[in-house]
Amino acid sequence: MVARGNLLVGQSGGATAVINASLVGVIGAASSAPAIGSIVGMRHGIEGLLREDLIDLGRQSAATLARLRHTPSAVLGTGRHKLGADDLDRALALFRRHNIRSFIYIGGNDSADTAHRLHERASVSGYDLRVIAVPKTIDNDLPHTDHCPGYGSIARYLALATRDAGRDTEASPQLYPVKVIEVMGRNAGWVAAACALAREEGRDAPQLIFLPERPPTSFAALLDEIGAAVREQGFCVAIVPETLRDAAGRPLGGGERGFVDAFGHAYHPGVAPLLAERIKGELGLRARYDKPGTMARMSILAASTTDLAEAEEAGREAVRRATADESDLMITLDRVADAPYRITYGAVALERIANTERLLPDEYIGADGRSITDAFRRYALPLLGDPLPPYARLVEKAWPDAGNAAIER
Amino acid sequence: MVARGNLLVGQSGGATAVINASLVGVIGAASSAPAIGSIVGMRHGIEGLLREDLIDLGRQSAATLARLRHTPSAVLGTGRHKLGADDLDRALALFRRHNIRSFIYIGGNDSADTAHRLHERASVSGYDLRVIAVPKTIDNDLPHTDHCPGYGSIARYLALATRDAGRDTEASPQLYPVKVIEVMGRNAGWVAAACALAREEGRDAPQLIFLPERPPTSFAALLDEIGAAVREQGFCVAIVPETLRDAAGRPLGGGERGFVDAFGHAYHPGVAPLLAERIKGELGLRARYDKPGTMARMSILAASTTDLAEAEEAGREAVRRATADESDLMITLDRVADAPYRITYGAVALERIANTERLLPDEYIGADGRSITDAFRRYALPLLGDPLPPYARLVEKAWPDAGNAAIER
Repeated sequence: MVARGNLLVGQSGGATAVINASLVGVIGAASSAPAIGSIVGMRHGIEGLLREDLIDLGRQSAATLARLRHTPSAVLGTGRHKLGADDLDRALALFRRHNIRSFIYIGGNDSADTAHRLHERASVSGYDLRVIAVPKTIDNDLPHTDHCPGYGSIARYLALATRDAGRDTEASPQLYPVKVIEVMGRNAGWVAAACALAREEGRDAPQLIFLPERPPTSFAALLDEIGAAVREQGFCVAIVPETLRDAAGRPLGGGERGFVDAFGHAYHPGVAPLLAERIKGELGLRARYDKPGTMARMSILAASTTDLAEAEEAGREAVRRATADESDLMITLDRVADAPYRITYGAVALERIANTERLLPDEYIGADGRSITDAFRRYALPLLGDPLPPYARLVEKAWPDAGNAAIER
Repeated sequence: MVARGNLLVGQSGGATAVINASLVGVIGAASSAPAIGSIVGMRHGIEGLLREDLIDLGRQSAATLARLRHTPSAVLGTGRHKLGADDLDRALALFRRHNIRSFIYIGGNDSADTAHRLHERASVSGYDLRVIAVPKTIDNDLPHTDHCPGYGSIARYLALATRDAGRDTEASPQLYPVKVIEVMGRNAGWVAAACALAREEGRDAPQLIFLPERPPTSFAALLDEIGAAVREQGFCVAIVPETLRDAAGRPLGGGERGFVDAFGHAYHPGVAPLLAERIKGELGLRARYDKPGTMARMSILAASTTDLAEAEEAGREAVRRATADESDLMITLDRVADAPYRITYGAVALERIANTERLLPDEYIGADGRSITDAFRRYALPLLGDPLPPYARLVEKAWPDAGNAAIER
């Protein structure tokens, strides 16, 4: 049993649909842990500690916590502060002053780096501190964990939204044959790949997924692929990551050069508006784009029940590890089986997480480089929670048919 | 009792979350109407009739129809074809050949115009035809009806998405203090106004709604308002319609002039990416934009239960009117009471709908021109169906508090 002390928890990086569920897990487990005194929240991640902008999480009602489980975004506020050497000293002094003995940080790989450095700083000073990170990123790009809380929910959102975009586009291809959807995902294709998870048959969207792992050789090559898809199928829904680069590593979203308006202002529109415009100008095809942006990564409407439950349990597991005197670890979700889907919770050294990223493996990418494999479906579909609601297609019975006079029946 | 004959139905204009529910209503009512023979669907609206691209809707299974009720987009395909004089002659010839005696058109005001002209053409030729339009538009801009099927669902989507965007922005205002959300709605502010329907307290988004009915005097004035909102509250979620113009009627989304890239290509980015860029360049504030685009108008995730039920019933009512020998009408939804909400179904002459639009009335617009009134809430909230799920806020108890030593408890 470790020394009685207080627990400090924060949220960091981009908000998600389930990062508050992890916080609820931390609060719930800490409330029933005899070794833990106060449960203290930092505002805007580590910035809140440095400013002593702290909040008493033990004073929140059960009703607030129940509601918080289904409230997206980061209720403590979030941040992206990179710790300097002075910050580390100050953080340690504050840990001592406030008798913080457990530090739980819910975030991605930058947060893992911050947590690891706090652990190291406490360790060299002989200050007894347990540091545990709870994984959180829609990008799903953390190594050594099967997947990351937050991913299943954006995957569900985008799978459904892409199916909708496909139905919309095929309803009026004579008006707008091309739809571009711009998605997040940093340098990895996990988020883009999820757009295909509601696809059931040949004509279903997306027709093309431009994965960062399989960049088009050039903007012109990308346009050619879209033109070919329209010629083949009559319409095309194309998924483009906001960070898409060509094979030489040049960003396709306007890049450093961008545009210049009539007043001489530089302008960097991002890849989707630029692509939609060039499809019109160079292919002569009317194109629209959707950019669900932060809505996609935070919508509670599409939150995966599996993701919500796992995010909360990962928070609980972090507290269990801290009270068992473990430290310098990130919680991992370890897959036991795909069907029926089952995971266990493990842990990995923070050092192995910080500042690394996991790209989409080759086995999940179709041979054409623009689609996903069944292996990816088996991996990803369980993360989306409840089965996706099925859509109807009409039975294609032409009227009047051959055996049916074209008059009253 | 009218002459026994066949019923032709089509979908027109932009697809919505509930236009298929109206089709299910038409098929359901027509199936049990003894006066109606075949139930025939046109592909892509009136274009499908002219091409004789017709489908037998009487051959669809009950399971397909049940699923179709919750399938967004327009399952028959949709279009925006404007009828020429030759088209009217050909349509009449096809009505005669196929013994079409009821024509049901699910669409907006362009569709009402098409339906009215078909009625007139049949009438002058002495051809016995009943023409009924079923209202459908997310823009909610049809006159003589309390509201339009499709509006309640996009209103629900955007109310929830704007609340999410607000929570996201207030979680990290130090990173991105401004969020711009670009929405549809043509020349009217109904869709933009709906973004405020989940707002409960002062800090909730949206901070500013730029309604077409209250245009900013200039782009510079619009930027000033956003800057002031950030100074006052620390962040700002701003709603901008895709068609936003300044007070002189000039489009703010790049307009005719647009941008010129390094290759000399003209570029019209739309209002949100342009605005986000200018907020950065001219206010020095980091800004992001979301453009849910067609996702917002078609998402079954956020479909309003009220909207779905009303869309289906409007389809049934159209068949009832046609079999009662009425014609040249659009079904209307007539409000009886706000609370508890109740409507009845009526009808209005097509001529009074075609090519007109209903703007947001003054009584629904806040005195500042950037918000909505309680009168609008009373009008709109019942259209969103089930109550919006509540979100949590933490009780703001600073730690350690004055009466609580900053050590172990």
